[in-house]
Amino acid sequence: MKKYKKSYSPNMIFGVNGSLNVLKAKKLEIISIHIMIDSNADKNSSISNSISKFKNKIQRVPKKDFLNKYSNFRAQGIVVYFKGKLYQDIKDFSNTSSNYSLLILDNIEDPQNFGQIIRTSECAGINGIVIPEHNSVDLTNTAMQISQGAFVHIPIYKVGNINRLINDLKKQGFWIIGFENSINAKKWYNLDYKQKTALVFGSEGKGIRQKVMEKCDFLATIPMKGNISSLNVSASISAIVFERLRQLSDIN
Amino acid sequence: MKKYKKSYSPNMIFGVNGSLNVLKAKKLEIISIHIMIDSNADKNSSISNSISKFKNKIQRVPKKDFLNKYSNFRAQGIVVYFKGKLYQDIKDFSNTSSNYSLLILDNIEDPQNFGQIIRTSECAGINGIVIPEHNSVDLTNTAMQISQGAFVHIPIYKVGNINRLINDLKKQGFWIIGFENSINAKKWYNLDYKQKTALVFGSEGKGIRQKVMEKCDFLATIPMKGNISSLNVSASISAIVFERLRQLSDIN
Repeated sequence: MKKYKKSYSPNMIFGVNGSLNVLKAKKLEIISIHIMIDSNADKNSSISNSISKFKNKIQRVPKKDFLNKYSNFRAQGIVVYFKGKLYQDIKDFSNTSSNYSLLILDNIEDPQNFGQIIRTSECAGINGIVIPEHNSVDLTNTAMQISQGAFVHIPIYKVGNINRLINDLKKQGFWIIGFENSINAKKWYNLDYKQKTALVFGSEGKGIRQKVMEKCDFLATIPMKGNISSLNVSASISAIVFERLRQLSDIN
Repeated sequence: MKKYKKSYSPNMIFGVNGSLNVLKAKKLEIISIHIMIDSNADKNSSISNSISKFKNKIQRVPKKDFLNKYSNFRAQGIVVYFKGKLYQDIKDFSNTSSNYSLLILDNIEDPQNFGQIIRTSECAGINGIVIPEHNSVDLTNTAMQISQGAFVHIPIYKVGNINRLINDLKKQGFWIIGFENSINAKKWYNLDYKQKTALVFGSEGKGIRQKVMEKCDFLATIPMKGNISSLNVSASISAIVFERLRQLSDIN
C-alpha cells in the first residue's frame, strides 16, 4: 500500500533543470540547497543566479560526501529541499478558454510515468492534471525529478471522486474523452480536440475503470501496428496531446 | 566511458511481458529461467505455456532468495537469461515498401529512453532503429526490460558511421528528416511521412550533431507551449511516429 503523502511535507528535487524550476517558483519555500563542490551544477551560471538569494541555505558538499548521500539519484550535483503546496484545490472551470484541456489520470501507479506525463503535458500546453486521492501515484520525489520540475508550472489537482468531477466538468462545458489501448473505438485523430476537453487515461495494467469509462462522451484508441501491443501510457499521452496541438494550429 | 557490450554475451530480461517476448523469439537461445515460487509469473498461464519446452532450464526460486537477488529490478517474479544476436547487420533497403521508415538515434545516452523508444516504435510500425557503434547507449538489460521485449520484434542496426549510412539511404530512396527542439524549422505535422523516411533524433543534451544535421533533407521541430521547453526525446518520438501513422491512414 502506498502511503498518503501530505502536501506540506518537505520534498526533494534533484538535478539542474528540476532544481532551477523549483528555485524560481514563488509559491515554494526553499529549506536547503546541497551543491557538490566543483560539479557542473556548482559551475552553472543559471544555478548561481537562482541560488544567490538563498545564501544562508546553501551547503557546498565535498564530492565524496555528496555522492555517498545521493548515489541513488540523478542529482547532477544539486539537491534542493523545499516545502509548499504541491496540489491545487479543484476549481470551477466554466470561464476558461474555449479549448481548455485537462488530463484525468485514473489510477496511474508508476511515478516515472507520472513524471513523464507531467513533463509532456506541460510542454504541450495542457492546462491541468487531475489525479484521484486514493489508489493513485503521488507527486513523489521521483515523479518531480522525472518531470524536470514541470510540476511547478502545470496545476495538479487531487480529487476524492473522479466520477463526480466528470459530472461537474460536463456542466462546465467539457467533452469527456476516454482513451484505451486495443478497443473498438474511434482512432485518436478522429476526435475533435478544438473544444473544452477532459482526456481520461487509465492505469498501466487495468486501463480506465468501468464506471469512469461509462461516463465518457467519446472513447478513442491508438491501434497498435506491431507485435507487443502495449504502448506505455506516457507515450500514448504524448501522441494525443500533440495531435490536439496539431488540430488547434488550424484555428490559431 | 561505456563499455562495448558484445552482441553474444549473456543477457537478462526481467518481467512478464519482456520475458514472454524473449521466450517466444526463435533467434535467441534461452540459458536459464528463474521463477519466484508462488509469484504472479509462477501462476501466469502464458508464462507456463512458454516455458514448458525449456523444462531443464527452469529454476523455481523461493521468494526470499529471489527478492534478495533481484531486488533492484522490476522482475515481477521472472528473470530469463539468454544469448543471441541483438543487433542486425545493416542491409540494402532499396526494395522495401514505399513508406518504409527507419529511426536514426544519433548518440542517445539513456537506456530508459532507448527502451521506451524501442517500445513506442514497435507499436507504431516503424521498420527499424539505427544507433551508432560509438558514443551511444547500448541494448542494456534496462533498455530491454523497459522495451517490454519489443527489441525482439523490431530490427536494431548498429553502424560505424551515421553520415555514411545517410548517404546510402538517400541513394536507396529515403528522405532524411532531422528533428530538434526549439529550432526555427517546419512544424512536425507539416512534413510528409508517406514516403520512405529516415527520422533522425539527437542526444538528450546536445541534439543532433552538426555534421549529421547538415545531411538532412528536411528539419522539423515540435514547438513548446509551456515553460520548461524540454520535451523528452522518447515523448517527441511518440508524437512523430503517430503523426506518421495518421498521415499513412489516409492512403491505407
